[in-house]
Amino acid sequence: MCMAYELYYWPTIQGRGEFIRLAMEEAGADYRDVARLPARQGQGVPAMLACLDGASVPHAAYAPPVLRDGDLLIGQTPNILLYLGRRLGLAPRAESGWLWLNQLQLTMADWLTEVHDTHHPLSMNQYYAEQKQAALLRSADFRETRLPKFLDYFTQVLLNSRGQYLVGSKLTYGDLSLFQMLAGLRYAFPQAMARLAPRYPALCALHDAVAARPNIARYLRSKRRIPFNEDGIFRHYPELDG
Amino acid sequence: MCMAYELYYWPTIQGRGEFIRLAMEEAGADYRDVARLPARQGQGVPAMLACLDGASVPHAAYAPPVLRDGDLLIGQTPNILLYLGRRLGLAPRAESGWLWLNQLQLTMADWLTEVHDTHHPLSMNQYYAEQKQAALLRSADFRETRLPKFLDYFTQVLLNSRGQYLVGSKLTYGDLSLFQMLAGLRYAFPQAMARLAPRYPALCALHDAVAARPNIARYLRSKRRIPFNEDGIFRHYPELDG
Repeated sequence: MCMAYELYYWPTIQGRGEFIRLAMEEAGADYRDVARLPARQGQGVPAMLACLDGASVPHAAYAPPVLRDGDLLIGQTPNILLYLGRRLGLAPRAESGWLWLNQLQLTMADWLTEVHDTHHPLSMNQYYAEQKQAALLRSADFRETRLPKFLDYFTQVLLNSRGQYLVGSKLTYGDLSLFQMLAGLRYAFPQAMARLAPRYPALCALHDAVAARPNIARYLRSKRRIPFNEDGIFRHYPELDG
Repeated sequence: MCMAYELYYWPTIQGRGEFIRLAMEEAGADYRDVARLPARQGQGVPAMLACLDGASVPHAAYAPPVLRDGDLLIGQTPNILLYLGRRLGLAPRAESGWLWLNQLQLTMADWLTEVHDTHHPLSMNQYYAEQKQAALLRSADFRETRLPKFLDYFTQVLLNSRGQYLVGSKLTYGDLSLFQMLAGLRYAFPQAMARLAPRYPALCALHDAVAARPNIARYLRSKRRIPFNEDGIFRHYPELDG
């Protein structure tokens, strides 16, 4: 008997959990999104917070997302994907392959943190409105220098790949994550991304190829896909889009 | 014949490369710190920049540090440590062990990024002096909320461990990295860290135990250990120390 994977993540945002959800959905894996299930049945956000309590959980994570697979609890998005990649058939088996994929995923994690900091450059304990002036400056820098640099980098990775995906001819969780980065950036910075799009046809093609995969397309149409919103990491504040 | 590992990182700062250097030094590994060697002999910073050039290097990294082991090029600090950990005897062999260690390392990577952003909250393309007002605000938030939260977390990890190290009774690269985090924080925020120290005896003990290991002690006294300075990630600007 195989138990379902359990994902513990905030129930109302895509956030970092979405990178895990996309891998599960593409693979057709059996998983439960625990914090979105009823708290009165021992699930919901209280169950998520309980698994972060280091006083009672030996390997408690610093923050969600957390994946449970039987007795194993795993935190940190790239680490969860490293674990799932092999099991879900979404990563190369050879060490040089999964190391390269992990490296790309870590680079996307850095990129994602920079996206977060466009609207929260000073403190994650304060509201956006309290740090809006700083957010305007950080966002301008992000749009003008950081965003093109990351887009250039992943374009080069695609060019260097021997297949149509980031790591050769077979889809990996890295492609799903890159789709998510591009989808999120289009939501948060529609004008900047529209201006940049003509320079990045390979990235646009990858985005569309992932979105068109049957399991992903079905997921994106479903209620399981939480809409982008202004509580998540990718937020659309028109003033930050320049 | 075993070739030496080659590390490519900025030659005048500890930065992210230091986490790799510490693992090499503890293990007594044969490695060359390429960017610190003479450029006229094909080494130095030009050699580092060359290995970041995606047009000629298929698996070029987004940024240093980069490790070369024979034909393999590996980027992203936690990824390099994941690779080296097993080879240098600085990581558990069981999957559940190295995943947990990788998770802790990724949490330290997040922490390190927050340290960087205390002095560069708005743009890494501008000098500190140009973003000093924002840095004062971000640093206050870091000292008051983020720093204690990370220190609390790693204290709990040590308490939950069945040995004196982060992952049981055997030293791993995670302990070396935690030493580096604490050493760097003491350099950058001496007053804040002095105030907090009495609440974190287990962390202080781990710092001292790592510093006293023969290979590390020898390294810290050597010229190979670049002093902390205001070009690195841990910078001492007294006004940011509150």
